[in-house]
Formats: sequence, structure tokens, C-alpha cells
Amino acid sequence: MAILVVGSVAFDSIQTPSGSVDHCLGGAATHFALAASYFTDVRVIAVVGKDFTAEHESVFKKRSIDTTGIEHADGLSFHWTGSYVNNLNEAQTLGTDLNVFQTFEPKIPESYKDSEYLFLANIDPVLQARVRSQMPKVRMVCGDTMNYWIADHAENLAKVLRDLDVLLINDGEVRMLAKEKNLVLAANKVLEMGPKTLVVKHGEYGATAFFSKRSFGGSVQATHPFRAPALPLAEVVDPTGAGDSFAGGFYGYLASQPELTPTVFRKAMFYGGVMGSFAVERFGTERLQAVTHEEIEERFKLFQEISHLEYTGA
Amino acid sequence: MAILVVGSVAFDSIQTPSGSVDHCLGGAATHFALAASYFTDVRVIAVVGKDFTAEHESVFKKRSIDTTGIEHADGLSFHWTGSYVNNLNEAQTLGTDLNVFQTFEPKIPESYKDSEYLFLANIDPVLQARVRSQMPKVRMVCGDTMNYWIADHAENLAKVLRDLDVLLINDGEVRMLAKEKNLVLAANKVLEMGPKTLVVKHGEYGATAFFSKRSFGGSVQATHPFRAPALPLAEVVDPTGAGDSFAGGFYGYLASQPELTPTVFRKAMFYGGVMGSFAVERFGTERLQAVTHEEIEERFKLFQEISHLEYTGA
Repeated sequence: MAILVVGSVAFDSIQTPSGSVDHCLGGAATHFALAASYFTDVRVIAVVGKDFTAEHESVFKKRSIDTTGIEHADGLSFHWTGSYVNNLNEAQTLGTDLNVFQTFEPKIPESYKDSEYLFLANIDPVLQARVRSQMPKVRMVCGDTMNYWIADHAENLAKVLRDLDVLLINDGEVRMLAKEKNLVLAANKVLEMGPKTLVVKHGEYGATAFFSKRSFGGSVQATHPFRAPALPLAEVVDPTGAGDSFAGGFYGYLASQPELTPTVFRKAMFYGGVMGSFAVERFGTERLQAVTHEEIEERFKLFQEISHLEYTGA
Repeated sequence: MAILVVGSVAFDSIQTPSGSVDHCLGGAATHFALAASYFTDVRVIAVVGKDFTAEHESVFKKRSIDTTGIEHADGLSFHWTGSYVNNLNEAQTLGTDLNVFQTFEPKIPESYKDSEYLFLANIDPVLQARVRSQMPKVRMVCGDTMNYWIADHAENLAKVLRDLDVLLINDGEVRMLAKEKNLVLAANKVLEMGPKTLVVKHGEYGATAFFSKRSFGGSVQATHPFRAPALPLAEVVDPTGAGDSFAGGFYGYLASQPELTPTVFRKAMFYGGVMGSFAVERFGTERLQAVTHEEIEERFKLFQEISHLEYTGA
């Protein structure tokens, strides 16, 4: 079933120990959409400028991603400049040019209105809430956020959290949002803020899902958290978009399944890790544009092989 | 089959956010021996002072741990003072009184000489090597070390590493030893220094085993690493000895099995995590003195439940 994603489609200029790229296609909605497109139909809401050409659009089109909701505005697209030269685990932001994103007013095309799955990528919670309110019949809502919104837009963010099925954020963000150092206690506090389920991304250490009584509509009580591994990688070329690609693989798989069960949720966490691990192998979205279904299934088996007790010799 | 462990039996004075204790029984060999004693016979080589009473010895005796090799010297036992008040993930050492440990000369009792498994806990690599050389027929040797020996005793440590079956150290120590930030590359470099297998402990994120062609005597080629989870805990009362307890559960289980296979190794990693998770629930060795086999098996199942794709509803 179709996922509607609202977020940034942007250009990134990135330096990493492996090299650098200038103005490559990026943005949370882009990484998310490409990763999710291997599992289900994806529809994007975003705004781009004059520098977004037919060639850029073809990256979406080739993956059959619906771009009806990508608005073309006067001016330049959102441009982020960042470096991972000193620390591959944390981006150092060198520049943020919001450009056309500064006045972004998400509009939902009529043809998107029957989307059953909504993903609110990391943007202003005011915009997240506005999109959410226009999709009252949606079956599931999953969202992301970041330290900036947690620190300075807490009240607006609280409104979004109240209504989320799944919140997907990283370790530091959970502890910051809960004002609590212990991960389990922090997760419990965040679940009390509204999200039915919380997925915490630990970067190279994988991810942990924390469940509440509302996680599976009350039909199943998942009392323990679930830990999904990450693949130990000898080279991370570009970490940009790893978290969004995780979200795309995770939510794409969920949306492709008829029912949300604990096993489906677990598999979705593994597919999240799989797509995240592909994303960092090349600069920008290069790897996510060209991965095959066979490679995805092979890597899924590898994730199982590196984390399950039964040795299969694979 | 019996494990011989050489290391510290000491007293710890510890402050954590949960409270504090003064001069409680501790030391790497103590935590290791208690954890391993639930799986196999354990024999200890260490030195203690006059402050080590029959009551302290009874902690070992109650777990049927052989204390023939614990030498009683004039003076006081090794005493460590540390705090986790600001950071539960890293001890701040407030004082190290080596006392009788300063002139420790490990002697191997005749009755220990048929031990098939040797564990070299974190002590001066010169002493590790001396014990190792006196046990030429041992079936397997597993060792630990720490930043102090890596930084200032590299040459002595290199001799120990050359001859290890398994090296068990933490994340930071692997990167320091290899002088390499990327975990996979660092692990490969450490494996080239000698250890057949490397187990990297990630604290609250679990542990990863890296294998070489020599890991299973060449009979099996484990090409992928293996990731074992840690249990997300709402309260860590005292992290002291968590790593040694992991080692005890890991090596105790290995020594209890007739053969070293990839599946046995994986289970050993899980039992390591299990014993580590018990250790931190109380101050000092309190929890490890009194855990039951039923609790261990129950927690082992929980580790499987939180990391495996198949949801069992446990």
C-alpha cells in the first residue's frame, strides 16, 4: 500500500574521508523514498528550485516514485554542506541554505489522498502537523525529528508526537527528548508522550524498538524491546541519509505487509538496517538508485546470519 | 572441563548513582570465576592480603571454585576506588592501591596443571606470559587486557597476543591497539597480531565476534562477524565487573562443551551477555553469588527473544 512522505528534496555537498561531492541529490524525503520504493508505492511531497532538473526527477521516476507532489518554486533548492572528515558518526554542518524550503507550504495532491501510510520526515513539526491533519483516514503515521526541533520547538513537536504510531529517532535524541540518560527509562518517557512504538537508531550498533501496550492495537503485548543488528562495514563512504534509508526500508516493508504483527515489525527493523547499510556504500543516493531485489534479500539473510544463534554457514 | 584463571582478587570501593559500597569483594578473577562457575569447574590463581578472611573465601567455596592457588601474603589486598556517578559507561578511577599485588608472582599448584582452559584476566602481560608458558598443554587460551598495557607495555603485550585463541576487549581498546578508527579494519589488524578470534565488547550495545581462518582450527570458515545483543536495562546499579562476568559466562560455557563449533561460540556470546546483565544488577558480586541455573536459562531465552526474528510471545 502507498506511502506518502513529506520532507526535504535537496542538494548536498559532502566531505568524508573517502572523498567529496558537490551538489549531489539528497534530502530526507529522497533517501527515504528511494529505500522504500523497493517495497511499495511511494508518493513525495516536497519543494524544489530551478536547479532541480528533469535529470534529477528521473532518479525518482526510474524507481516509479510519484513526484506529483514535488512543487517547483522560483529560486534554488535546499542545499546542505557537511563534513564527516573528523568523525564518520556525526556530521559537522558547514552550511544550511534553506532557499525555497524557507517558505515551504506542503500541499497534498488529490491523487495522494488515499495513501494509507504517512511518513513525516525531519522537518518543522508545524508542517508535520499540518500534513497529518489533512490525512485523517491514514492507517499509520511514522515520524522523525532532530535535536534542533527537540530543543527549540518542543511545544509544536509535542503535538506531533501525541499522534504517532512510530517515532524513529537516534540515541542522543531519545535521551534529549526525555531528559533522561538511561535508554530504557528515556524510551518509556517518550512512549508516554504519545508514540505507540519507538525505534531508536544506534548507528553502527543497530537499532532497538521499544513497544507500548498500544503498539499492536492491543491485540499483542510485546513486553520486551527488540534489538536489530547493523552490519559491521570496513568502509563507510558517506553516512548521509543512512537514518532516512533505514526509515525507508523499515516503513516500506511494513506498508507492503497486510497486517502489523510483531514478526512483521522485526523483519521491518532488519530491512531498515539492510537499506541503511547499502546507502552508506556510495556518495549520495548512488547506491540506493541501483540496488537489486536479489541484493536486498541476500543482505537480509546476512543480517540474520550475523545475529542468530543457528549457524548456517552462509 | 576445568578453567584456570589468573588475575586479581581484590576489594573495591565504588560510588554509582544508585549508592556506594566500601571494600566489597571484587577483582577481575573474582567476577570471572563466579560467572564461569555456573558452567564448569574453575581454579583461581591470585594473591590476597590479611584483610581477605575466611568469609571472603567462602564466597568462592560456596560456588565450588578451587582456591588452592590463592596465595595469602603479608600486607593488604589490592584495593580499587572508583566512581560512576557522572558516567555509568566509564569508571573514573579515584585510587589504585596495588598492595600485595605489586610483587605478585603467580605460582601454579600441581593440582591445577591438568586444566584444559586458561583465562588470562587483565594483569601485567609479563605475568600473563609467565603463566601461559607453564601451561604448554592447555587446549585453549583466552585473554583480556586494558588501555594501560596497550599504551605503555606494547611489546610485552604483543608476545601474549601471538599465542591467544580468543582476545576479549572493548571497543575503545580494539581501536587503540590497532591504531585504526573503523571497527572492522581495526579487528582485522588485531587478528593479524595473533588472536585466532576477537570478541569486542560494546557495553550496552552488546558484543561482536570477529573470526579468522584459524578460529575453528581451519575446519569451518566463519566469514562474517557475529553480533550478540545486550539486554536494555532500566537500572544499572554497579557496572564494575560487567566485562569480567561476560568473559566468565562466555568462557565457562565454551569450556563446558565437548567441541568448539560456530553455534557453540554464538551461544557462548549470549551466555556472556546473560552473566554480564546479572552482574550489574547489584553492587559487587552480590548478584553473581546467588543467581540460579533457572534464571540463567530464562535470561538466555530472553536474549534470544529480543534479537531473533521469530516472535515467540515470551
